Amino acid sequence: MKTVKDYIRTIPDFPHEGIMFRDVTTLFGDPRGFRLAVDQLLHPYVGRRIDKVAGLEARGFILGGAIAHQLSIGFVPIRKQGKLPGNTISQGYKLEYGEAVMEVHEDAIEAGESVLLVDDLLATGGTAEAGLKLIEKLGGNVVGTAFIIDLPELGGRKRLEDLGMDVHALCAFEGD
Amino acid sequence: MKTVKDYIRTIPDFPHEGIMFRDVTTLFGDPRGFRLAVDQLLHPYVGRRIDKVAGLEARGFILGGAIAHQLSIGFVPIRKQGKLPGNTISQGYKLEYGEAVMEVHEDAIEAGESVLLVDDLLATGGTAEAGLKLIEKLGGNVVGTAFIIDLPELGGRKRLEDLGMDVHALCAFEGD
Repeated sequence: MKTVKDYIRTIPDFPHEGIMFRDVTTLFGDPRGFRLAVDQLLHPYVGRRIDKVAGLEARGFILGGAIAHQLSIGFVPIRKQGKLPGNTISQGYKLEYGEAVMEVHEDAIEAGESVLLVDDLLATGGTAEAGLKLIEKLGGNVVGTAFIIDLPELGGRKRLEDLGMDVHALCAFEGD
Repeated sequence: MKTVKDYIRTIPDFPHEGIMFRDVTTLFGDPRGFRLAVDQLLHPYVGRRIDKVAGLEARGFILGGAIAHQLSIGFVPIRKQGKLPGNTISQGYKLEYGEAVMEVHEDAIEAGESVLLVDDLLATGGTAEAGLKLIEKLGGNVVGTAFIIDLPELGGRKRLEDLGMDVHALCAFEGD
């Protein structure tokens, strides 16, 4: 039987030369692959209280929507600057070159709510850390951070674990 | 009992003055609201063959992920230009000012597959028409187009119905 990793394809030189892009669309597009990924993302949290799932724009929305439906809980989008229409709080984070900002609606999470943070890929952990800070600023408790792919060489797992986070990833890619 | 429409909030003057923005994040963030929306989106298609669900970037990803998981089928992202890493086909469409392009991976849908197209909002129908043309270019059959909100004054429903499409929307907003 194929594993989650088997459904992921690698596209060389995207978005620019030298990057091996791990493409989850082939995983999401396969009926067994997508279900397997969502089920495995949730396994560590069975029996735990989760009030909301937060997804990072944009591929985290696909997973977050599935998880919210599976658990009959609400979904919270964490978006790039300027995309959310209501009052937001924001959090900057460093990119390879420059800086970016993520935002969440200030009323999206109530103090004391337990939130699962999801995205497709954990690389440097910059976006995930911004997401986690946003949830915590609103008084939410992050029960865990769940990803399809971990790229351990980029240090995201260590970065999140150093912040006391539980990190759950379904597979890892190293080098080529 | 609250209806889907009751969970949607209106933000005046977003993204620019004079626009009454219908914000589905309050619907998606509520456990009952989100489940209700996904369930009602699917009701017309119960018993119909659907091989894949295609979601329009970015809010259509949230709904598409939930539907793919519910039906145990694959999810296909239809994205803005330059976001998809593999070989794509593209389709232009008119905006209020200028033009935009949507893309899909050329291997995301096989000829003869039945595809449900979803998004949160039907306004002019430009993005939805682009999505539908992309699916048809790949040989897919669009079983229907499903939206949370219809803005009938903007003509999207008529535009899609004139193309022979089945249009399913959970609620409509007119004027203020």
